Amino acid sequence: MLEDWLAPKAAALESRGLTRRLRPRPADEVLIDLAGNDYLGLARDPRVVEAAVAAVREWGTGSTASRLVTGTTELHAELESELAAYTGHEAGLVFSSGYLANLGIITALGGPGTLLVSDEHVHASIVDACRLARSRVEVVPHSDLDSIGKVLAERKEPHAIVLVESVYSVLGDAAPLEALAALALKHNALLLVDEAHGLGVTGNGRGSVAAADLAGLDHVLVTMTLSKAMASQGGAVLGPTILRDHLINRARPFIFDTALNPAACAAALAALRILQGEPARPRRIHETAARLAEACEVMPSSGAVVSVPMPGPREAVAAAEVCLAAGVRVGVFRPPSVPDGISRLRLTARADLSTADVDRACAIISSAIR
Amino acid sequence: MLEDWLAPKAAALESRGLTRRLRPRPADEVLIDLAGNDYLGLARDPRVVEAAVAAVREWGTGSTASRLVTGTTELHAELESELAAYTGHEAGLVFSSGYLANLGIITALGGPGTLLVSDEHVHASIVDACRLARSRVEVVPHSDLDSIGKVLAERKEPHAIVLVESVYSVLGDAAPLEALAALALKHNALLLVDEAHGLGVTGNGRGSVAAADLAGLDHVLVTMTLSKAMASQGGAVLGPTILRDHLINRARPFIFDTALNPAACAAALAALRILQGEPARPRRIHETAARLAEACEVMPSSGAVVSVPMPGPREAVAAAEVCLAAGVRVGVFRPPSVPDGISRLRLTARADLSTADVDRACAIISSAIR
Ligand SMILES: Cc1ncc(COP(=O)(O)O)c(C=O)c1O
Ligand SMILES: Cc1ncc(COP(=O)(O)O)c(C=O)c1O
Repeated sequence: MLEDWLAPKAAALESRGLTRRLRPRPADEVLIDLAGNDYLGLARDPRVVEAAVAAVREWGTGSTASRLVTGTTELHAELESELAAYTGHEAGLVFSSGYLANLGIITALGGPGTLLVSDEHVHASIVDACRLARSRVEVVPHSDLDSIGKVLAERKEPHAIVLVESVYSVLGDAAPLEALAALALKHNALLLVDEAHGLGVTGNGRGSVAAADLAGLDHVLVTMTLSKAMASQGGAVLGPTILRDHLINRARPFIFDTALNPAACAAALAALRILQGEPARPRRIHETAARLAEACEVMPSSGAVVSVPMPGPREAVAAAEVCLAAGVRVGVFRPPSVPDGISRLRLTARADLSTADVDRACAIISSAIR
Repeated sequence: MLEDWLAPKAAALESRGLTRRLRPRPADEVLIDLAGNDYLGLARDPRVVEAAVAAVREWGTGSTASRLVTGTTELHAELESELAAYTGHEAGLVFSSGYLANLGIITALGGPGTLLVSDEHVHASIVDACRLARSRVEVVPHSDLDSIGKVLAERKEPHAIVLVESVYSVLGDAAPLEALAALALKHNALLLVDEAHGLGVTGNGRGSVAAADLAGLDHVLVTMTLSKAMASQGGAVLGPTILRDHLINRARPFIFDTALNPAACAAALAALRILQGEPARPRRIHETAARLAEACEVMPSSGAVVSVPMPGPREAVAAAEVCLAAGVRVGVFRPPSVPDGISRLRLTARADLSTADVDRACAIISSAIR
């Protein structure tokens, strides 16, 4: 019965060139990787690796239960306080993924009394959170302050939350955070900023909320992932202590989910400490991003992500194949993974790429996209 | 503004004795732990630990991106095929958590053409998935075949999925899987079984679906977590290959989430291999569960979980404190984490508990609950 149901759907995708397939990668590739999100280049850094190794040996391979049962180790507590201190927030709460962090905070603050105002380009996890939250949801045009002000002003709900990303994941553009925070404050609303692509990259690593001097304001809340610049896995919410306490008691994807494993906590903590000691890493991301953007003749990026529009999904896939054959892996984003329906290559400017590798990548990509 | 909003909610919880607080645990506790879900006792097994260590050194600390970009390593592929082979399914797909596996499959098969028939005791992740799926949802009384048959027969939707757990997480009772599968088949519906508490425990470790000889039937699908008996983190969907392909293309919490980290993949794989070589482990779980149930004068459990009803949340917390002071950690479940509103102690019968520890735990708990 599954066959009759799903086979026609699979055929329809295939005919539009949109079928996705997994390609398991080996451990020992000789490729210049511009597709992954290891922005600071720390996922194989020996210090991060050995921190994870030590944690596995000390704590075991699993956290063994929900954070509320046995899943909270001292490592989780340490990671939460260092993340909060580094980014300028009062408190932090770690989830097992950035996806669940977004579902957790938005559903725990959502409900009929809360209007959710969501930028049309936000990540799938925020879109899903809006669907799950039992709130009225207003999706507004991308980074459009007027629209946001209008829906906030006209609302009947006592509470409202404006949902944005600091650096958008696919296009790489930045949100106007200062104006957004001022607008939210004026309308007695919260601003929730997903810093998945900001942490470790913008604001000398501290993220865009800190850079805009908004961290610690009691109406500005942050979510993040530990799976990109932090070279690990997991997610976090940052904000006032009262928010943390609320989530511990109300966020279903926190309460009913097994805690992040010790290796991932320790790796994120080690990455965070390296980031604090090596400010050249985020700088290097921006230099490399500028070089890649120039080579591809696209706008410079606000973060690590350089987005190169392509005529269609087949062209995007074909260009990526050409790059791969030449030793450079780039990301390919096709509908429905693109907010504007435009297929594209997505290049990430890792901090640990050598100048020679960047040169080579620029040459190969710029020729592949022509 | 957050303070005014959340402080009264926090006070209301506090006044009902329902406030939850995190207690970070140290690495070197001397406790008999009956609260975690490390059912097979493998989270600190040297073979599992060293598999994770080797994976971190070989692959790095993060998977670096979504499964569709660079996140699928050969480890993921290996884990998926061994999980599927062991449990008797055609294919497997690993997610970063059991929570997201449930959200993924249910939303990817849901929609207006699909009726979701959900047992009233299913886990929060299935409840959230139902809310997210844009389907009509019928919540039926616990393990009530007549009600399920009725809503399936009366449905207008071409598709339907019956949602159950093989062993229920809080009460520890088993679903009537054979009858459910027959009923689903009769009504041209799918049966989705969450084996979070079955894998590694029931059916000599293979889970309840395999034990009932239902694995591999094309209308019986399975989700599981890698965070309990598998001593790790992550989740999986098991079923026909066409389902796997569909999820790769349609399951948003698969597509838009960073892949499970290499250490967790390797740990789960090592635990799975140990389980296959050591059939005494699941047997030991059942012996210990029977002893605990007897000591607490409750019904024997179908799995590793022994559920001990308490008069109220304060009594449950107080009894757990008494146990802890005596060196035994038990789980405490209070509303809203209990399906029937009854606060309880939850004891898990880990395979690696010594007979002496079980004796001691039985004595301490049976006196604490009186
Ligand atoms: C903006 C944004 N938010 C959230 C997530 C989800 O984070 P995670 O992969 O840790 O679930 C991602 C990417 O994966 C993202 O790009
Ligand atoms: C029945 C059931 N399904 C799903 C989950 C979620 O799995 P995970 O913790 O891997 O997210 C759990 C427990 O955590 C569970 O008990």
